[in-house]
Order: sequence, then structure tokens, then C-alpha cells
Amino acid sequence: MCQHCLGKTIHDVNHHGVWDNSIEPVMTIKPGETVHFECLDSSGGQITKDSDVSVLSTLSMDLLNPVTGPVYVDGAQPGDILKVSIEQFIPSGFGWSAIIPGFGLLQDQFKDPALHLWHYDRHQMGACAYGDFAHVPLKPFAGTIGVAPAQSGQHSVIPPRQVGGNLDIRDLSAGSTLYLPVEVAGALFSVGDTHAAQGDGEVCGTAIESQMDAVLTFDVIKGQSLKSPAFSTPGPVTAHLDRLGYEVFTGVGSDLMTCAQDALSHTIDWLCRTTQMSAEKAYMLCSVCGDLRISEIVDAPNWVVSFYFPKVVLA
Amino acid sequence: MCQHCLGKTIHDVNHHGVWDNSIEPVMTIKPGETVHFECLDSSGGQITKDSDVSVLSTLSMDLLNPVTGPVYVDGAQPGDILKVSIEQFIPSGFGWSAIIPGFGLLQDQFKDPALHLWHYDRHQMGACAYGDFAHVPLKPFAGTIGVAPAQSGQHSVIPPRQVGGNLDIRDLSAGSTLYLPVEVAGALFSVGDTHAAQGDGEVCGTAIESQMDAVLTFDVIKGQSLKSPAFSTPGPVTAHLDRLGYEVFTGVGSDLMTCAQDALSHTIDWLCRTTQMSAEKAYMLCSVCGDLRISEIVDAPNWVVSFYFPKVVLA
Repeated sequence: MCQHCLGKTIHDVNHHGVWDNSIEPVMTIKPGETVHFECLDSSGGQITKDSDVSVLSTLSMDLLNPVTGPVYVDGAQPGDILKVSIEQFIPSGFGWSAIIPGFGLLQDQFKDPALHLWHYDRHQMGACAYGDFAHVPLKPFAGTIGVAPAQSGQHSVIPPRQVGGNLDIRDLSAGSTLYLPVEVAGALFSVGDTHAAQGDGEVCGTAIESQMDAVLTFDVIKGQSLKSPAFSTPGPVTAHLDRLGYEVFTGVGSDLMTCAQDALSHTIDWLCRTTQMSAEKAYMLCSVCGDLRISEIVDAPNWVVSFYFPKVVLA
Repeated sequence: MCQHCLGKTIHDVNHHGVWDNSIEPVMTIKPGETVHFECLDSSGGQITKDSDVSVLSTLSMDLLNPVTGPVYVDGAQPGDILKVSIEQFIPSGFGWSAIIPGFGLLQDQFKDPALHLWHYDRHQMGACAYGDFAHVPLKPFAGTIGVAPAQSGQHSVIPPRQVGGNLDIRDLSAGSTLYLPVEVAGALFSVGDTHAAQGDGEVCGTAIESQMDAVLTFDVIKGQSLKSPAFSTPGPVTAHLDRLGYEVFTGVGSDLMTCAQDALSHTIDWLCRTTQMSAEKAYMLCSVCGDLRISEIVDAPNWVVSFYFPKVVLA
């Protein structure tokens, strides 16, 4: 039993694979209560320590990105805000990253599957070795965190929505507070898709995907509404990886998506040239530690998107 | 005379308002040499300490965004890389920010002109007061920094290009090293549009626009090429403003530009609600200290762009 939640645990058997406001809540809580969620990894347990790349061609899509829940929060009504205090993650020590054909920012350049397995110290949570090439600082968070949408029926869990979901926001780590718009009575909150580390963008489509538990406290804010998720961080968000600065590559042009693809491509070219790692390895490494930033979005007709690769990873 | 450049100064009378590889260089230097540039502000001196908002309706567009140069770097040839070590900025202590109709990320929402004048301590370079509302940490850099394009003729200095120009990259501050693709003999480098502070995105279209001098050292890298600008930072890039963390608002949807606009709009709503500043003031404040980041760009069909507002600014 977790020290925070006094026995309010939702086991991972209580997961669901779509957003649907008709799914019965597995627990009802009062505002102020803390819940311990056993989350599954985004493969729903299909990728294990024994997996090799062949697993990627036999993944059952129906099992992907499961979320644990839903929790009914007493008093939450449509138009309110659900406040989620992110208390703690309890990581498993094992994770994976993959290139999945048809998925990812450079899916047109990377058509073959690739898989990397990560083994990290779940207690120390020090930087994790990436073969002989790099060490990636860890900062756990839940990729998918949200509430049920008002619209009835089943909605894919893959795209994020105004009510949250697969936001993949790297800075929703322990200590941060997330605010979600409530669209149905009780909010119907669920969480999953836990990550041991990720860069802004999650560019190859996967982070260090890693099963872990999440401990969260819930409150309801009345009399204010929200159009899409917002959050607050208690301090710097890149302190785990910015100590030595960054190597940065830009994409300049009239389409933000193309700019982002160009900035990432240039970074991969540089990584391959300077470290001799394969382009596939570089693509996955960028996804777990590098950040996409919009440097300039006003000097029409051209914008600048930059990919920030933290030097400490190669030090 | 600057301690770095041993008398190699380019005075601000030597400025030009378009990129054009037929503009005669005002100085020829050898690789390894340092040059002191007197830069003009982006209004070309049209906005002064005595200006009020009426100046924005009489700005001469031909004078906007002048750059000082060009410098011919001996030995630089098309296909090489020009390495620019950013040594120092020497700020003036005065700056301005503006909402210019027809310009900026939310130009459809902000149709009236607005002007804010900044007075900062050019020696201490501490955070600068924004009325009674906020204090903005300063981090000087040059918004426009680049080399002449291969294509002949006159090219607007407003949009950034593969050869640099109006990149408006906040982290091209002292200590960083910029790498630019060379397209013409001698590179023909120019710099201007200096800023005392800016957030990633420069969302309202202006930073703390501020006349200052720039001290830069040049080298030529042979045998490597570059498709667009790249740079290296010596350490953390947000240490001046991330100490207390961030309030963050998201935009979620299928178009990155709309996501960015939504994230910014939500931030402005929050600033107005919590500080009572006007929306115009909030928009300009966001531009000089808040950052646009791409949190998620792979979970089709929806992306997440986040606007990070540093809490220290309101502390």
C-alpha cells in the first residue's frame, strides 16, 4: 500500500482502451482524496524484457494505450475544473522505445520497425545508458491523463482532446498540477501510458515507455472553466538535462510541421555523423530527450522551429 | 573601442534594409577576427524615448529591421559553414515593444496599435519593471543575424531564410555559437534587430526591441555543409526565468498554428483574470518572456502546443 493514498488503489485490471462516458467508474472519491493507480505501459503489456523487434509486427492495436480508471470525483460537474496534483510515480525499471511504421514525425523516412529495450535503476532513477552511445536522464510522467468527453460513444485513446488524454506533455511530472475541463458528472478520470523519459514532441512516436504506478490527488474547482488542459510546474522543467547546454538545429519555412521535420532531420544527420550511431538509433534517442521549440512564429511567411538536443546525453 | 575587437568597428551608418548579395562589403576580415557591430533597433531609430503610440501609424516601412554590415570573411566560399561566436552585447538601456496591426500571432484578435517603452539598467541588466504588473528578466541577443543569399536581387529582411536573417532565436545570446550556411563568396554577414529579452515565438511580433552593439568572432568551417542555421549553447537556456516554474496553457488540435494561437489566447485570458492587466499588455508581456513549445506532434490527428509563462515574472 502506498503511503499517500491510504489504500485507495485502482489495479491495472481496471483499464479501458477507449474514451467513453458510459464506462462505469471503478471508484468514487471525494475532493481532496488521493488515489494510487497501477498503470500499464502503452503496449498493454505486449512488449516485455524478452521481446525483439518482431513483436512490433504482431501488436494487437486494440490493446494499445490502455488507461486505468475511470474514477468518479464527487461533485465534479460539466463546466468545472478537475485539479490533479501529481504526487509521485513508482517506476518499474524496464522500458522500451520503438519506431512503428506509419507512426512518428518522420514516418516517411523511417519505414522499418525498430525496438530498443531500456533497463534503469528504479530506485536511483539516474541517467539510463543507451548502449555505448549516450545516457538519458529520467523524468517520469503519464503520457495519457484525462477525463471522459461529453460526446457519447467510443473515442480513440490515441489523439489528445480538449479534455486531455494522450497529451504526452513531458512536464506533467511529480510536483506539477494539471487542470482539466470537466465535461461529464464525476469527471471520469483515467490515466496510463507512463513514460520514464521523453522530449517535447515525442518525435519518433514513443518515449521510454515504461509500466509504473501513479499517485494523484483530486480536487474540484467551481466557478471557473477551462477550454483545454493547463498545468503548473513547481520549478525549472529542464534541469535534468540542460546543465551542459544544447546543440540546436533549425527548420525554417512557411509550414510549422515541415519546419519541425527539417529541424529533427538535421539533428539526426548530426548525431549519426558525430557518434556513428544508426539513423534509427538517433531518431529514437531524439524522441526520449530532445525538445521541439517554436523559436519564431510571426515573421511571415517563414517560421523557425528548433530541435534542442541536450549535450549532457552524450557527455 | 571594444576590448575584444581591436578597433574593428562597423558603425551603424553602414546598415542595409534588404538582403542583396550585390551590396558592397564594408569590411573584409580574416577567419579568427572579432568585429564590433553598432546595431540599430528594429525601427531603425524611428521609435525613441519620446514616442507615443501614434508613432506606429507613421512608421516608414522601408526603414524597418536594418542590419549592420555586410562583412566579407576571407576564404568563405559557397558550401562552407560560417561559424559566429557570440561574444558580447552592449545594451543601450532603452527599449520598446508594440502591437503592430496586421502583424503577430493573434493579429485577428488585436487590431489596434499599442506601444510600451522599457527603461532598464544597461550595466546591471536586472529584471525590468513592466509597470506595476511584472518584472521581465533580460537576456540580450540579435534577432536578425545572417549572410547574403545566393539568389540575386533584393530580398525582404523580414522573413528568416536558410541563410539565417530574422531568426528571432532567443538563445543566440552571449556565449552561444551560431553556424550559418555560406551561399556567396565571403559570406557577406550582417546583424541587427537587437533584443533585450524575448520568449520563444516572439508571439506579438516584437520583443524588447533595443538598440545595442554586438561583438562577434568569425571562423570558416570547410568540408562540411549545413542546410539551415544551427547553434550551440554553453549551458541552460532558461535559467534567467525558470526558477519558480511555469504556468502553462495548451492548444490541442490538428493544426500547429491554431494550437499555438489557442495556447497563447488561454494564457492571455489567465493573465488578465489574475493580474487585471489589459489584454494588450498581456499579449506584449507574453511576447517578451513566454515560450511556445511543441509538447506532442505524433498522436494523429491532434497535436499539443504549450505556452509556458514563467512565474518569476509575476513574483
